[in-house]
Amino acid sequence: MSPTHKVYIAGPEVFLPNGFDQMRIKGEMALAEGFFPSTMAENDLDPTGATPFEFGCQISAANERMMREADFCIANLTPFRGISADVGTGYEVGFMIALGKPVFGYTNISKLYYDRLLEDYYGGKAEKDADGVLRGADGLMIEDHGMVDNLMYDGGIAAIGGRLVRRDVAPGRMLTDLGGYQECLKLARELFDKR
Amino acid sequence: MSPTHKVYIAGPEVFLPNGFDQMRIKGEMALAEGFFPSTMAENDLDPTGATPFEFGCQISAANERMMREADFCIANLTPFRGISADVGTGYEVGFMIALGKPVFGYTNISKLYYDRLLEDYYGGKAEKDADGVLRGADGLMIEDHGMVDNLMYDGGIAAIGGRLVRRDVAPGRMLTDLGGYQECLKLARELFDKR
Repeated sequence: MSPTHKVYIAGPEVFLPNGFDQMRIKGEMALAEGFFPSTMAENDLDPTGATPFEFGCQISAANERMMREADFCIANLTPFRGISADVGTGYEVGFMIALGKPVFGYTNISKLYYDRLLEDYYGGKAEKDADGVLRGADGLMIEDHGMVDNLMYDGGIAAIGGRLVRRDVAPGRMLTDLGGYQECLKLARELFDKR
Repeated sequence: MSPTHKVYIAGPEVFLPNGFDQMRIKGEMALAEGFFPSTMAENDLDPTGATPFEFGCQISAANERMMREADFCIANLTPFRGISADVGTGYEVGFMIALGKPVFGYTNISKLYYDRLLEDYYGGKAEKDADGVLRGADGLMIEDHGMVDNLMYDGGIAAIGGRLVRRDVAPGRMLTDLGGYQECLKLARELFDKR
C-alpha cells in the first residue's frame, strides 16, 4: 500500500533503553498501514556549540515542525513516571488537536484515571468534603469522569473524531507493548479511507 | 486600566479545596493588569442528564472554546501529583502554542527538572549506560537540558515569545502562591504594550 498520510508518533519511547528500536518498529508498522511516519530533517539538530538548553530547544522546534507537517497523531498515553501520561506527549496531543488534526491515543493499562488516583496514588484513602466532592488526604479533588486521564485528553480526542484505546498488557511490557498502537493505526486507516 | 486582551488561565487550581477562590483571585489580578480572564459561558455546561463522561467532555469543549477566544495563556506549571506539571495544563500549553498564542508559565519550585528527577524521583541513584546516557534504575533516560520540565514546555514557550518563571515559595504554598503568576501578568503586559 502506498502511503497516503503522515502520522506524528507521540510518546515517551525516546526515554526507553531500547527507544531507538521502538521508534523504528513503530515507523515500520505505520508504513505497513499506509502512513508516512514523521521524521526529523538532517538539519533539524545541530548540537555543535549548543548549550544543553539550546539543544533541547532544537528538539522542541523539530517536533513542532513535524507536528505541523503531519496529518494526524498517534499518542502513547500510558502513565509515565506517575499517575498520568507523559507531559511531553500531552503537550503534543493538545498541539495537534488545536490544529484540527485527529489524535488516536492508547494506554497499556485498562484501569481508569479515577481508580488509579484513588487506589494507586491515594492508597484508597479519600473523603467527601461538605459539598460531596471526593478528596485525597492532600485536599485535592479526585475527579471521576470515567475517563482514561485528565478530561482534556478523553474530551479533546473524542471531539476531534479520534479514539482512546485502553487495554492491559503482559507484566513488564507497560511501556513497550504495541498492540494498542496497532489498533490506533487500524482506526486511523478506517478514518482516512472513509474520507 | 481598560482591559486590552483576553488571558486563558491554565493550572490545576480547580482541584484545590479553595480552587474557586484561587480562580476568582487570579481573575481579579488579571483585570488589574488590564486583561480579561476567560470565563465559561452560561450554556457551556449542562450536567442535567449527562453521564460523568459526557459532563467531562462539556468541560473539555468549554476550555477549548475559551482557549480559541483568548489572546494568550498563563499556565501554572508547578509539579502536580508527581515530578512534572499537571497533564491537563500541559495539553493546554501545547494547544495555545499551536495556535501561535504566547504562553507564560510559572512554577513554584526553582529546582530544575533534571535535579527533581535525579534526586526526588530516583533518590539520587542513576548510572550512565554504554553510550554515556544517564538512566534511572528503571532504565529510563534522565534528560538534562537545564530546563523546568519536559523540553516541549521550555522550548515551545521560548520560541513563542513567552517566558517560564521559576521561584521558590513558602512551605505549604506550592500550589497556591501567586507571585509567579503576578510576574507572568507583568511580562504579558510588557509584551502587549510593545506590540
